[in-house]
Amino acid sequence: MKLNILKLILSSSIFITAGTHAADSVDYPDGYRTWTHIKTMALHKGHPLENPFMGIHHVYGNEKGVKGSRSGQYDDGAVLVFDLLQYKTQDNASTEGDRILVGVMVKDSAKYASTGGWGFEGFKGNSHTQRLVNDGGQSCYACHASQKETEYVFTRWRD
Amino acid sequence: MKLNILKLILSSSIFITAGTHAADSVDYPDGYRTWTHIKTMALHKGHPLENPFMGIHHVYGNEKGVKGSRSGQYDDGAVLVFDLLQYKTQDNASTEGDRILVGVMVKDSAKYASTGGWGFEGFKGNSHTQRLVNDGGQSCYACHASQKETEYVFTRWRD
Repeated sequence: MKLNILKLILSSSIFITAGTHAADSVDYPDGYRTWTHIKTMALHKGHPLENPFMGIHHVYGNEKGVKGSRSGQYDDGAVLVFDLLQYKTQDNASTEGDRILVGVMVKDSAKYASTGGWGFEGFKGNSHTQRLVNDGGQSCYACHASQKETEYVFTRWRD
Repeated sequence: MKLNILKLILSSSIFITAGTHAADSVDYPDGYRTWTHIKTMALHKGHPLENPFMGIHHVYGNEKGVKGSRSGQYDDGAVLVFDLLQYKTQDNASTEGDRILVGVMVKDSAKYASTGGWGFEGFKGNSHTQRLVNDGGQSCYACHASQKETEYVFTRWRD
């Protein structure tokens, strides 16, 4: 009986630790590398967003994310992924390096009403669990607020 | 009767003109923009391949193309697309511009035996019909020959 209580306490504390973001957490976007590639951009030293976004980034979307990137209007369930890699230029060629972070935006108008209907998260490097956003996405949203006309999304579909 | 013969001659010559590549032509890769994005690279002024490949290129694959990019072994039917766009750097940000060309490799061991089992083609800009390869892919193959160990493909899957 005591053992069972101990197990319960242990499993509860593990749950609490792992579930810090549980109520409104944004899931790691499993399989996004085979989603549709929407566009690419590289930010270099000296760019206002060099910290933390210096490198080359590709934006991928699930089906609703791609649809939204074309129209500027996003249905709940839309997911956009900002995949940031190191970018090295040598011998007049620029190549992709290690992954720096995976940024995610998930549309849920009700759950994320305080941040424009989007949940924001970042995952460090190749980790699926090491989260980078610790303010409920408010700082992300502050920058994305400038894009109100396209529902707070910077990315537009590039043919 | 004379009119019919004239029609026949005209239609034959049109066929011959439009069908220069007919026997072993490589189809435009319809829908490749939603295929899987394999990797990206940018070539700058001064790179040995700047003419004609200066710009940013994304490589996309159909299912067999992606499988091959992971293993280095390609099944017939594999298609890889080299999507080359202009690339402009301003204010410490590099952005994609107009499409320069769409390069295509199609694996068919029998049909393209003389070029390593691959059919090569290029389509100018956004055209689906204006072809750029006029030597049956021999010049493409000459450069790709260095990659014999991965079946003449430079691209490797990037996680």
